[in-house]
This record gives sequence, C-alpha cells and structure tokens, in this order.
Amino acid sequence: MPVLITGITGFIGSQLGRVLVAQGEEVYAIVRRDSSRRRIADYADRVRLIEADLFQPASYRPRLEEVRPERAFHLAWFAEPGRFWTAVENLACVSMTLSLAQCLAETGCRHLIAAGSCAEYSWQHGFLSEDFTPTEASSLYGVAKNAARQVLEAYTQSFPMAFSWARFFFPFGPGEPEPRLIPSVTLQLLRGERARCSHGQQIRDFVYVEDCVTALMAIAEHGLEGCVNIGTGAPTRIGSVVESLAELTGRSSRDIEFGAVPTDPDEPPMLVADPRKLARGTGWRPARTLEAALAETVEWWRKAE
Amino acid sequence: MPVLITGITGFIGSQLGRVLVAQGEEVYAIVRRDSSRRRIADYADRVRLIEADLFQPASYRPRLEEVRPERAFHLAWFAEPGRFWTAVENLACVSMTLSLAQCLAETGCRHLIAAGSCAEYSWQHGFLSEDFTPTEASSLYGVAKNAARQVLEAYTQSFPMAFSWARFFFPFGPGEPEPRLIPSVTLQLLRGERARCSHGQQIRDFVYVEDCVTALMAIAEHGLEGCVNIGTGAPTRIGSVVESLAELTGRSSRDIEFGAVPTDPDEPPMLVADPRKLARGTGWRPARTLEAALAETVEWWRKAE
Repeated sequence: MPVLITGITGFIGSQLGRVLVAQGEEVYAIVRRDSSRRRIADYADRVRLIEADLFQPASYRPRLEEVRPERAFHLAWFAEPGRFWTAVENLACVSMTLSLAQCLAETGCRHLIAAGSCAEYSWQHGFLSEDFTPTEASSLYGVAKNAARQVLEAYTQSFPMAFSWARFFFPFGPGEPEPRLIPSVTLQLLRGERARCSHGQQIRDFVYVEDCVTALMAIAEHGLEGCVNIGTGAPTRIGSVVESLAELTGRSSRDIEFGAVPTDPDEPPMLVADPRKLARGTGWRPARTLEAALAETVEWWRKAE
Repeated sequence: MPVLITGITGFIGSQLGRVLVAQGEEVYAIVRRDSSRRRIADYADRVRLIEADLFQPASYRPRLEEVRPERAFHLAWFAEPGRFWTAVENLACVSMTLSLAQCLAETGCRHLIAAGSCAEYSWQHGFLSEDFTPTEASSLYGVAKNAARQVLEAYTQSFPMAFSWARFFFPFGPGEPEPRLIPSVTLQLLRGERARCSHGQQIRDFVYVEDCVTALMAIAEHGLEGCVNIGTGAPTRIGSVVESLAELTGRSSRDIEFGAVPTDPDEPPMLVADPRKLARGTGWRPARTLEAALAETVEWWRKAE
C-alpha cells in the first residue's frame, strides 16, 4: 500500500519514516530539492522521494496522480524554533495543507493523518481535552493549525477520505532541534557548562518521539478520526526533567541555574493532555517511562556530540 | 488615497465600487482577464483595473507593490449559487484570502475590510452576536470563512494593518444573482408565472445591498475592527417578503405556491443579526425601510427584464 509522508526530514517525520520503511511499507515522501536529509541518511535509499515544493501544488500533483497514496501522514509545517509561533509563514502553511489535502482526496487517498498541536487549545486550561477545551489559541501558529483543521474536517465530511488530526504535546528525543529545552540543556551539561533555565516550575506533558510515532501508526491502523491528543497525560515539572538530565549526564543539580532565563508572565503554569481518546481508541500507551526515554535521549546526544 | 477592491464584478462589490468612484476615490480592482464586467459597465472606465488572478499571488503582487493601497475591501470568494456551500473551491478561497492579506500588509495597507458571513455562526442560535454566539458553522463555506478570519485576526495582531471582518446576513437588491430567493420569485411573478417557494415560515435578516455598502464604508471610516455583523436586527418572515413581492409586481398572494419547494429539515427557523456593534461603532442604520427597498428592487428587475 503506497504511504505518503510530508516532513520526513523533520524531527518526528524522520522517525516515522524509519519505522514504516523497517516494516516494509511502500513509503513515498515529498521533499524539497534542497532539503537537508541528514536525519534520514540511514534509510533514504529505501524511500521513494518525490522532489517537489509543497507550496506549489502543481509541482507534486502529477506524481500523486500516479502514486495514488492510500494513506498519508502530513507532518510538514514551518517549524523554525523560536520563530514559528508568530511567523507569517503560518499563513502559507495553512494554504499548503489545504491544497495537499484536496489533492490527496482527489487522487483516492483513504486516510489523511496530519499534525496539529496542543497550541490550538486555549492555554488558560491546564488539562486539554479534544472534547471540551475551547480552541482559542494565543499564537498565530496555534490559530493557523486549528484553522486548517477546521476546514479539513468540514471538507472531508463529504469525501470518502478519513481525517485524523494529531495534536502533539511536548515531543522530545533523539533528533530534536537543538535550540529547544531538552537538547539545549543536555548539550550544555555534556559540554561541562552550567545549564541556564527558567524557574522550571511549569508543568508540561512530555512525550517521547518514538511514542509519537507509535501513536501516529495506531491512529492510522485503528482509523481513529478527528482530533487526537498525543500526550501521556502525565504532568511533569520542567525542573524535574532538567534535574534528571543533570544526573544522566553525570553532573549535579548545582550545575543548573534555575531562573537564569526569564519567563514570560503569560506562560501557562500547566499544559497536560487528556490522553483518553487515543488510549481508548487504539490501546496506545507510551512504551517507556520518562526516565528511560530521557536516558536514551542523553545517550543519543552523547554520541552525536 | 488608493483603495483596492476585490470582487468588484460581484453583487455587493459592484455597488461598492460605484459609490467609491462617485466619491472621487482612487479605486483599484483586481479582476480576472475573462471576468464578466456587466455589473460595472457604467463606471468601469473610472476604475484602475488590475488584470490578475487572485489565486496566483505572483500575478498581482508587483502591481500592489507599485499601487500600495491604503485601504482594501476584499469581497472576492467563490459564490456560485447552490454550489458554494459545499464546494471544494472554498479551500482555495481560504488560501487566496490569506495570500492577499499578507501581500497587502507587506505593501503598507493600513486597513483590510473583508467579507465574512453569518454562515460562520452556529445556526442553532437565532440571534447571532459577534461576542457570544459560537462559531460552529455547519457548512464548508461557513467553516472556511471563519478559518480565514481566525488566521487573519491572529496575523494582523502583529502588523500595523487594521482588520475588519464584515459578516453579511441576507443581502438583496439590484444585481442579486438570479437563482436566489428574491430575484427568482420576483422574476417568476413579473413573467406571469406562479412563484414557487418553501413553506416561508423561516425568519431571516434581510439587508439591502446599498445598506451593505454604507456599512462597509462606515466600518472603514470609523476603523471598526474585528467581526462586525451587517444586518438590520429586524426579524422578517420569508413568506411576508414573498407576499410583498406579489403586491409590488401587481400579482396577488394567490400567485404564490408556498410549500412547492421542499425545505431541508435542518434549515434554521430564525437567523437574525445582533446589530449593536455596527450601530454603536459607526452610527450606521439602514437608509430605507424593507418595503421601500423591495419596491426599488422590483423596479430594477422590471427594467432589467
């Protein structure tokens, strides 16, 4: 069965592609001619790459008409750390997503699984549910993701293409972009520097990238439609993650400077997924404890250094 | 001051263009090379037409960089009667709207006034307010309009471009597309045929196209931002409009076949605008009574026949 991935060179997409290829799936991926393929170097020869520009539907449409993917994982979006929250590129990403979905529906795709974000929810609420939490995003990124989702939910009601929208919480693990919290703290600690953090009291729902991949695959296998949170439901203090990283890198809590990075006064104190829809709909659970996943992550960064 | 209009060849846009031109404004309009200019034939020579394709931003961007509109009225959208509620073209119209807004913001536009719709609201509610009615549209058209609006509201928060979103209720008047209720009933009656209608008990908020134009201009002049209902707040039974049309055409209520057109069981019994934001923010009120506006409309169709 032909399966399409967009965003295969990204953090989650690269791990999804690796697993699908290992399972012997017929994997197609739309990639820019000039994209870095560093993250997929070990298996790129087993992916059928479609060199095209997702922002130019005419550049990929003829290929999708030939390939006719039956299932598609759409993970591509503008994701430059720091900038993506407010970047104007979010507008083009909405358009890109709508055009891609339309092309997939029209070429016979039976199930589109696309990446949303917990940033779509109103962050005034601490426990975020697909069913009852209002979607009043405070960032352009969250608004744009949710807007694309709304249009596609309405559109796919009249098409025989199932539609799932995976709202990721806080993925981490091997290959995470370096400017983000866990990589930046890990690298500072591994390099013998002091780790500079915010106060660390915020509660978040960290989900290991491998578990993100099994969640996406479970959604596909079970045909679980609509919005689906991808989070563990476990509230974790950022400070405790940083302390674990200090221990795992052989440093100590004295090497952490809590409060060195200022915190936005609007930063929400707690963001945790209601994990029930995914669990009930697919039986998914994280394969590892947070401690074990952090240990693997630190090992990966140690080797990557 | 350069003012841009999109959708100038449409029902509302053509009347807006005529008024702006009459006021001596420097009016630019993006029109397709092959568009019908029937509705603007009397003043097209006083509009600076930009022949381009709104769905291809590269086709108009260089011109907007030269013109640098200070104010823009964006009324273009896929509007084929009957089809627009569910048409896939709604997806491309979202993209088109986002691209246009971005181009306008980046070329120095100070105020974008764009056309939304009362179809963005959840139609379970009869009195529809910008402030408290949920936007849970039941049509792809309504979802798409609202999705575009959400992204643009978030986007323009970080740009010095004011943004207004005019939610039209039920515009009618000269030039309305013939398949719609008022023209089709009027033409049947003028032609001596019996007028075929639904049961006619639905309550709607009819707003005269000239009042739509003055509302758009009032929003622009007063800089009234955000969502703004364009409706009168007056509940009118469809049946009573049809009976007025019979009288105005010299026919009688015996010439109306109520119930001849089946009614969707989901059709909402009442859809009326909360008109307060527009009234308070600009002082706008309809210039004519419904009776007077219907009389003008019937006269127009009589001459057009």
